[in-house]
Amino acid sequence: MAAALELVEALGHTGLTIEAVAARAGVGKQTIYRWWPSKGALLFEAFLEFEPGGQEPPRPSALADDLRRAVADAIDEVTQRRFDQVCRLLVHEERADLLALLMAPRRLAVEERLRRAQLLGEISADLDVVAAAELLLGPVYQRWLLRSAPLCDSFADTLVELVLRSLRGGP
Amino acid sequence: MAAALELVEALGHTGLTIEAVAARAGVGKQTIYRWWPSKGALLFEAFLEFEPGGQEPPRPSALADDLRRAVADAIDEVTQRRFDQVCRLLVHEERADLLALLMAPRRLAVEERLRRAQLLGEISADLDVVAAAELLLGPVYQRWLLRSAPLCDSFADTLVELVLRSLRGGP
Repeated sequence: MAAALELVEALGHTGLTIEAVAARAGVGKQTIYRWWPSKGALLFEAFLEFEPGGQEPPRPSALADDLRRAVADAIDEVTQRRFDQVCRLLVHEERADLLALLMAPRRLAVEERLRRAQLLGEISADLDVVAAAELLLGPVYQRWLLRSAPLCDSFADTLVELVLRSLRGGP
Repeated sequence: MAAALELVEALGHTGLTIEAVAARAGVGKQTIYRWWPSKGALLFEAFLEFEPGGQEPPRPSALADDLRRAVADAIDEVTQRRFDQVCRLLVHEERADLLALLMAPRRLAVEERLRRAQLLGEISADLDVVAAAELLLGPVYQRWLLRSAPLCDSFADTLVELVLRSLRGGP
């Protein structure tokens, strides 16, 4: 798993081969295929095994600040080469199940913060928090996956402002 | 190009090979590589050549209706197997330049409708229409590429409602 992570960082997911991982790890190709059906499955497990796990969630602050930080953290994550390459490989292999496991924690954290905002009366109790979390993170993932525009600070600021207007606006 | 489109529909982009395209077209592999550097480049050109081109833009209607139709059209497009497979192949080959050409028309149409809304005073003249178009389409492309949830009617309705609240809400 360590060999796979090092190689995907160096070669990218299209250049990575099971042969190269086997050679670097000093094992046969069949040994790898016995445990993992594809490059994506191997890298998914390697990523979970070796990447620093979830930190303590930060103490809740003002809603605007928390959403701004959620967007900044999402941008930091997807622009990390290992995360980027593992996710793109999973998109390629159509492993939406594994991809969902990698991507879900961030979305769930936003949903939780929005539910808290509902309890505190910061936003309407009727709001669809699942859809609102997608409204916040969807544009980030769009820019990342499609490389349609840079994930810059001004984009993050504008995005959070637009989402806050939606959360606070009338029907 | 026709052979490539038929095969990607039947086999998916991971199953498609240049060998199979060459065999179906009755030419040698080298003939294909002489014209296109990769599967993605071939399919991109084939898609532009054979897919029905842009229809006349519909007459503008109420803003809510136009945004609802823009989301429905985007969902129809990305759930079409040929479009889906060509785009996923371009993601895999990191051809963001070609992908941008395929994806841009829909985003630009939303931006144009929002600029019209600004002229008509339907929404604030200060609004960042580029970011607002991403707010509308980003969650659609997220669900499509990550297959994170179904692209159903209720999702489209909720999304448009949230975006309209943002467009009309105060700062």
